[in-house]
Amino acid sequence: MTSTHPCAPRPGSPRGVYNFSAGPSLMPESVLRQAQEELWDLFGTGIGLLEHSHRGSAFDRVMAEAEADCRALINLSDEYAVLFLQGGATLQFTMVPMNFLPAEGVADYPDTGVWTSKAIREARRFGHVNVAFDGSQCSYDHVPDARELRLSAPAAYLHYCTNNTIYGTQYRTAPASGAPIVADMSSDIFSRPMDFSRHSLVYAGAQKNLGPSGLVLVIARRDFLERACRDLSPMLSYAVHAQQGSRLNTPPTFAIRVMGLMFKWIAGQGGVTAMARRNESKAAVLYDAIDRSGGFYRGLAQPNSRSLMNVTFRLHDARLEKAFLSRAEREGFSGLKGHRDAGGVRASIYNAFPIEGCSALAAMMDDFRRTAG
Amino acid sequence: MTSTHPCAPRPGSPRGVYNFSAGPSLMPESVLRQAQEELWDLFGTGIGLLEHSHRGSAFDRVMAEAEADCRALINLSDEYAVLFLQGGATLQFTMVPMNFLPAEGVADYPDTGVWTSKAIREARRFGHVNVAFDGSQCSYDHVPDARELRLSAPAAYLHYCTNNTIYGTQYRTAPASGAPIVADMSSDIFSRPMDFSRHSLVYAGAQKNLGPSGLVLVIARRDFLERACRDLSPMLSYAVHAQQGSRLNTPPTFAIRVMGLMFKWIAGQGGVTAMARRNESKAAVLYDAIDRSGGFYRGLAQPNSRSLMNVTFRLHDARLEKAFLSRAEREGFSGLKGHRDAGGVRASIYNAFPIEGCSALAAMMDDFRRTAG
Repeated sequence: MTSTHPCAPRPGSPRGVYNFSAGPSLMPESVLRQAQEELWDLFGTGIGLLEHSHRGSAFDRVMAEAEADCRALINLSDEYAVLFLQGGATLQFTMVPMNFLPAEGVADYPDTGVWTSKAIREARRFGHVNVAFDGSQCSYDHVPDARELRLSAPAAYLHYCTNNTIYGTQYRTAPASGAPIVADMSSDIFSRPMDFSRHSLVYAGAQKNLGPSGLVLVIARRDFLERACRDLSPMLSYAVHAQQGSRLNTPPTFAIRVMGLMFKWIAGQGGVTAMARRNESKAAVLYDAIDRSGGFYRGLAQPNSRSLMNVTFRLHDARLEKAFLSRAEREGFSGLKGHRDAGGVRASIYNAFPIEGCSALAAMMDDFRRTAG
Repeated sequence: MTSTHPCAPRPGSPRGVYNFSAGPSLMPESVLRQAQEELWDLFGTGIGLLEHSHRGSAFDRVMAEAEADCRALINLSDEYAVLFLQGGATLQFTMVPMNFLPAEGVADYPDTGVWTSKAIREARRFGHVNVAFDGSQCSYDHVPDARELRLSAPAAYLHYCTNNTIYGTQYRTAPASGAPIVADMSSDIFSRPMDFSRHSLVYAGAQKNLGPSGLVLVIARRDFLERACRDLSPMLSYAVHAQQGSRLNTPPTFAIRVMGLMFKWIAGQGGVTAMARRNESKAAVLYDAIDRSGGFYRGLAQPNSRSLMNVTFRLHDARLEKAFLSRAEREGFSGLKGHRDAGGVRASIYNAFPIEGCSALAAMMDDFRRTAG
């Protein structure tokens, strides 16, 4: 398992590269090592993780541990169900209105970027959407504060996205609304304490803070799930998945186990409060490099909306961006190119990303500014 | 990675147990070993398989290899698209009629067991179903021959399930129909040569012959996909997935890679023709043990419908079944308990299952008959 990649190895990074990918993204070494072992033999059964029946006792244990560890991380009450589903956040964009937006109903959707725009497009197939904030007017450079939100009343629900990966903006707290609140937390779940009790349903694709792609974590009030407004195919009904304990059919067993290992890893790091402290320190290293550059680097997000997960910026001279990204790639900083809709540079620094990588990138930013500026 | 499982180790089985699970199921050691390595570092990039962006060049290579290796196994023409989707076969039960059964249309569904019954239930949400064969009348002990099929004309399509895991029955060839043919091949795909050119759409959950759960392989005529009869959410539209090269959103990257490794493994074994020869030999070992038992063991399937993938039988005295299953478990034969809807014993012996396991089980069956009979 020696690395033969062509980059100059980064000291401090065990594989010689700092992976800033926006997702799928870096995972902790201990989790990967345990997943390697369990691929061959899970729990000493003589059968590997991929090969166990999803109805057998070994996988029962996988599911029970994953759910219990998830609940423990956030002190989740039994009023909430924890579901392990497929289809990515994208299928949730469809399933949320399919389940909870009646044809004559209206839902509030603040639009804070590409992902909420997609969610809005899906919701319009099923009922009425009130775009409660139109971020396209400000190039999505911030999330709305209470004064900017135009809510309808009564709304079937309010849907928002806690962290916007493409533009690098993040809500500090959930928007205030009397309606049930639904959140897409794909890119910042368990990166900080959040008030789950204010939410009726939360979903998160795993591939940023929680492990492998192909798995979505859903945390939802049981009484909210009962309020589904349509008779749906079982695979598209949250209530059926809850009744079936996420085993209506064969679930993505490997991904569920690895997500469970991520829960254990977060707990071992001190839990979500400790993760938040680390994530604040990591992000500060990069935002400081932007702020001390005298305008050489320019953050895409307004300071009070800055994301702790995705640090986005442009260079004052767009012609320098290519040189910056080339040098970064050459020096073992991988995945820094901004999303095509925002351009520039994006450093994604989810839970598992080490502060050493932020410091190394900040030092390279300073050096590039001095030498190329 | 030492095994501490409580079973008596089976000689010839590297992990001390023969895993007869109906799915998820046994995988080849070489594939598991490569997956272990790639979890840490894929293609020498310094980034592991779970951590690569699904839009990056390493994962481009994963997708290109998987598709090319799939096509090579069955000489698939370019008229067909190869898709890697989520949601298991169960979501395909919904998506097939959602995409291709108009509200006023009718589709032919021979009912050969639990899975086709579920597919029929879903199809009825969208249009009319003609149950072209009612297997419940014969306890699902065989699949229909041409004389037993009652087809409608014109049908939007005919849907059938090539291999019925629960009852252990299998079609030898596709049913004859002038309508487009759709097949659920979840449990026997690539276990033998099949005439894909007679099918308009084929789907298969991966967790039996093709690797990890959470991934569905779809092989479909491009012109058939264009005939979708509804305006659908992108995640529920086969045509959109085809246009997007299975990357409408983040796909299950790990599962796709492991499925790709399974394609390479099948090719390395000599391809689907060689797999068929091996599978025939393996199944014969167990069916012979049934047939020479003088009625002590009784196959659930009629001989001309016997499955090469799932060998199902009962003991002549139902009270002995528990003793048989206990002894099997004790001696390192795992996963032999029949599905709750069929009872008895089921030995699932997909592509990766070794003939040594069949021989060992047959010997144990003979011995049990002599000592307990």
